[in-house]
Amino acid sequence: MKKKTNKNATPAASRLKVIPLGGLEEIGMNITAFEYEDSIVVVDCGLSFPDDDMLGVDLVIPDVSYLKEHADKVKGFVITHGHEDHIGALPYVLKDLNVPIYATRLTIGIIDHKLEEHGLNGKVKRKVVKFGQSVNLGDFRIEFIKTNHSIVDAAALAIYSPAGIIVHTGDFKVDYTPVYGDAIDLQRFAEIGKKGVLALMCDSTNAERPGFTPSERSLTRTFHSLFEEHKKKRIIVATFASNVDRVQQIINTAYEFGRKVVVEGRSMVNIIETATKLECISIPDNTLVDIEELKKYPDDRTVIITTGSQGESMAALSRIANNTHKKISIKPGDVVIFSSSPIPGNEKAVTKIVNELLKRGAEVVVQDTHVSGHPCQEEIKLIYNLIKPKYAIPVHGEYKHLVAQARLAEGLGIDKKNIFIMQSGDVLEFDGADFAKVTGRVHTGGIMVDGLGVGDVGNVVLKDRQLLAENGMIVIVLVLDQYTGQVAAGPDIISRGFVYVKESDELMEEARSVVELAVEHCMDRNIHDWNKIKNVMRDELSSFIWKRYKRRPMILPIIEEV
Amino acid sequence: MKKKTNKNATPAASRLKVIPLGGLEEIGMNITAFEYEDSIVVVDCGLSFPDDDMLGVDLVIPDVSYLKEHADKVKGFVITHGHEDHIGALPYVLKDLNVPIYATRLTIGIIDHKLEEHGLNGKVKRKVVKFGQSVNLGDFRIEFIKTNHSIVDAAALAIYSPAGIIVHTGDFKVDYTPVYGDAIDLQRFAEIGKKGVLALMCDSTNAERPGFTPSERSLTRTFHSLFEEHKKKRIIVATFASNVDRVQQIINTAYEFGRKVVVEGRSMVNIIETATKLECISIPDNTLVDIEELKKYPDDRTVIITTGSQGESMAALSRIANNTHKKISIKPGDVVIFSSSPIPGNEKAVTKIVNELLKRGAEVVVQDTHVSGHPCQEEIKLIYNLIKPKYAIPVHGEYKHLVAQARLAEGLGIDKKNIFIMQSGDVLEFDGADFAKVTGRVHTGGIMVDGLGVGDVGNVVLKDRQLLAENGMIVIVLVLDQYTGQVAAGPDIISRGFVYVKESDELMEEARSVVELAVEHCMDRNIHDWNKIKNVMRDELSSFIWKRYKRRPMILPIIEEV
Repeated sequence: MKKKTNKNATPAASRLKVIPLGGLEEIGMNITAFEYEDSIVVVDCGLSFPDDDMLGVDLVIPDVSYLKEHADKVKGFVITHGHEDHIGALPYVLKDLNVPIYATRLTIGIIDHKLEEHGLNGKVKRKVVKFGQSVNLGDFRIEFIKTNHSIVDAAALAIYSPAGIIVHTGDFKVDYTPVYGDAIDLQRFAEIGKKGVLALMCDSTNAERPGFTPSERSLTRTFHSLFEEHKKKRIIVATFASNVDRVQQIINTAYEFGRKVVVEGRSMVNIIETATKLECISIPDNTLVDIEELKKYPDDRTVIITTGSQGESMAALSRIANNTHKKISIKPGDVVIFSSSPIPGNEKAVTKIVNELLKRGAEVVVQDTHVSGHPCQEEIKLIYNLIKPKYAIPVHGEYKHLVAQARLAEGLGIDKKNIFIMQSGDVLEFDGADFAKVTGRVHTGGIMVDGLGVGDVGNVVLKDRQLLAENGMIVIVLVLDQYTGQVAAGPDIISRGFVYVKESDELMEEARSVVELAVEHCMDRNIHDWNKIKNVMRDELSSFIWKRYKRRPMILPIIEEV
Repeated sequence: MKKKTNKNATPAASRLKVIPLGGLEEIGMNITAFEYEDSIVVVDCGLSFPDDDMLGVDLVIPDVSYLKEHADKVKGFVITHGHEDHIGALPYVLKDLNVPIYATRLTIGIIDHKLEEHGLNGKVKRKVVKFGQSVNLGDFRIEFIKTNHSIVDAAALAIYSPAGIIVHTGDFKVDYTPVYGDAIDLQRFAEIGKKGVLALMCDSTNAERPGFTPSERSLTRTFHSLFEEHKKKRIIVATFASNVDRVQQIINTAYEFGRKVVVEGRSMVNIIETATKLECISIPDNTLVDIEELKKYPDDRTVIITTGSQGESMAALSRIANNTHKKISIKPGDVVIFSSSPIPGNEKAVTKIVNELLKRGAEVVVQDTHVSGHPCQEEIKLIYNLIKPKYAIPVHGEYKHLVAQARLAEGLGIDKKNIFIMQSGDVLEFDGADFAKVTGRVHTGGIMVDGLGVGDVGNVVLKDRQLLAENGMIVIVLVLDQYTGQVAAGPDIISRGFVYVKESDELMEEARSVVELAVEHCMDRNIHDWNKIKNVMRDELSSFIWKRYKRRPMILPIIEEV
């Protein structure tokens, strides 16, 4: 640290600012800026997946205008773990803001792969940080603390600033018996707590759930008994691509039962590759086989681990269930284990796949085959008690989750006025003494990515897509003579997504007449203003269709001049 | 009954046919035909709500071509209860197939209201049947048996045919202490079981859940303690419009605590009106007040019962949460109780409303405030044990639910080959002796209703809507001279839902050039076939856009001739 913590009130310029740029209105798009004088460090840089009404949008990334405006201050990105909602926006943001990335080993491994896909390899500085190590970034020092989560190498961060220490848990759970590596470093949490922590930013995902999240290792017995029960059958396990520990456990069980393992689904293959290289997973020799070799082994000697546990329509499991997978098809008697629980919004998609699998004769196991990667209420309370923060800033969750954590914090004796339920864009300032207040807002928001287009789909485009989706569209084409202003051709009518045209000749003819009449009226009344003619055509057709159908297709009048 | 049950094998013509015309691939659209020689009776006639990929579709009704083809045989509709998935398609189907409707009192009351809305009042014969009564319909006799469900006056049906008795449970639960009327008539189930039942068609909705569904009355204590806890606050309760018993319990609790009640939401107001007229609900005098009078009473003296517990965007609760309701707005301290659980697929919509309510300062209660209206495993087993059917036909559920019930039935000793997991359209024949087989299929399917259009939106239209929704569209207009075949105007390009046009002038100009070049090439090579020109324009533009954007908007080339 360059400066000592100032115990007295400091001028506004020397306050610590905490500015979440995303992640507080949704699960996803986690990114928070910490600013002190001329230094900004950014924790995480995630994407979120589009809401149902963001038609055609592939993903959403945070608007980092604030960082770009203060680009000279930004010292780097500090990443807590390798999930998409914490790293997914990096390739987009780095194009405008090329600063170093600091993270643990597997996290950097996954980021590297992502940068490569975006043609950014070699163009960005990355640094692997070990647990217990710190990095100095301007006025800040950031210490990486070991935690547990549904991905290996997750870290909490102790952010040391001249105005005090902020502890950011990242996504975590308390797992005393993790599958890989050490348990969460509760001693270090306690030590830092003893120093005096200004604020705790803690994961809220499961803040509504009482109790403790079970250990990842509790699934060892689950898998063992499922494999025991289905000794004679082929076993397919669907889980999250990035849950290396889960894959490890399935592979361990397969090995124990003398089964070969096929890993299917591009994202899972990629992560297993990275994890293997970094020795975060250890696969017994001759256990992993290529999908092509699958048919060499009897069904009761194989396990397929696959992506698609969320019902994603393009993932391997979906293709297997719909019998469109090139290499794997369900046979009666197959056992499919969903080692996952549906993320809110995916319930119907998952059920659809379950039904398909059942129809093809598979047995489907969905219950008690997953444990969460986030802390339940007792774990949250534990962290609060080790850290004993002055201020609480619940993060990572929808509003209801943040509120749930706020209530827990209150129950633990933290003064209500010291608990901040922030919105993305809020600027929360601390002076290290008793000043703590949201003093302003910066511009934030989601930028929609559609194909290669970043930010070219906005509300106007979405609104049009919604209109088109709802009732289709009708194009009216009219050709006018530029000298006489009279009709040279048309009006003609073409529709898409409105009615089945082949069976609606009569209607379309009628609609054409309606527009024709409208144009004639314009001509009769000497109306030659194109916009007026367009409006008349649109209005007449629109009211004809509404009367007949109670529908509102988009109507697009086009006038050409010859 | 006109004929005696024939204990020997009968010729195919004299077999009893069970033909589900919907309801077995989805929750919704329940309708089953029972046919014997020249008689058909139809049990239920429900609608289903559109899947996510049925863009712009309002509702889906069953294709009853089979019934129309045999219209002379159809003796009537027998309806088990008044939920949309059992009655919703009646107004549409009755237009083509005007036969009498038989149902219990509240069910007829709700149907009447529906027929009125569709201008069919006075045009359809309806008959109220009491529990224990039977109706004779051709070769069938149908007995109505009292059950319990999340709507008053639900009935199971004993369908007496010359080939034996089929018991259809409708939707039910076993409620020993219902709020209104009697408990399910288990004695009658037992009596009929004693006679010997050919087949049981039993509700599968909760067949995956162990145990018993709690009594509706168990919520009395829940509401009491919630009202006690929030004595000083305004209380808003959201629940299903048709759950008259739930509304009754909320009103009872409100009365007990001296609160006035406002009912909000058109569908709920309608059903309460009907239920009041039929004395299925009893509201203490001076308890119900108009929404306009709400402000006369202090907050702790009022309760608002509202629709919208599923997060429906147009319902009252959604408008209240978004502060767009004209009469009611959330005040900090309000308590909102969701007396419901989200129907699969609605989870995100419900959460969105919960977050909005919390943001406005309301307290939201969602847990342990609802009981299901469907039987869990122990109730299903009870009914099987009372009925002791020879054959089991699980109904009312997705495939996974039917499978779950089939497993229960097998566990109860029913021979696996006597359990039929049917598909909509299957014709299952019984001869009353040992013949029981799916012998064929009839045409079935869902007919989509969009506005006033019934069946004019099919797969082609939906596919277009999906394309339009995904990436928008681009229209190319080209005007050709009919004599020279040369370009008279254009090509011009108009897009909607693709990119924000105002910020994409340059792109659109480039796209225009691409098409212009394509047209020039056609002219140079003397290509004058319109289809060829259209294809060339579409292909060139499409590949330009794909290269630039990795998107595939719908491209619609139009040629006009002058």
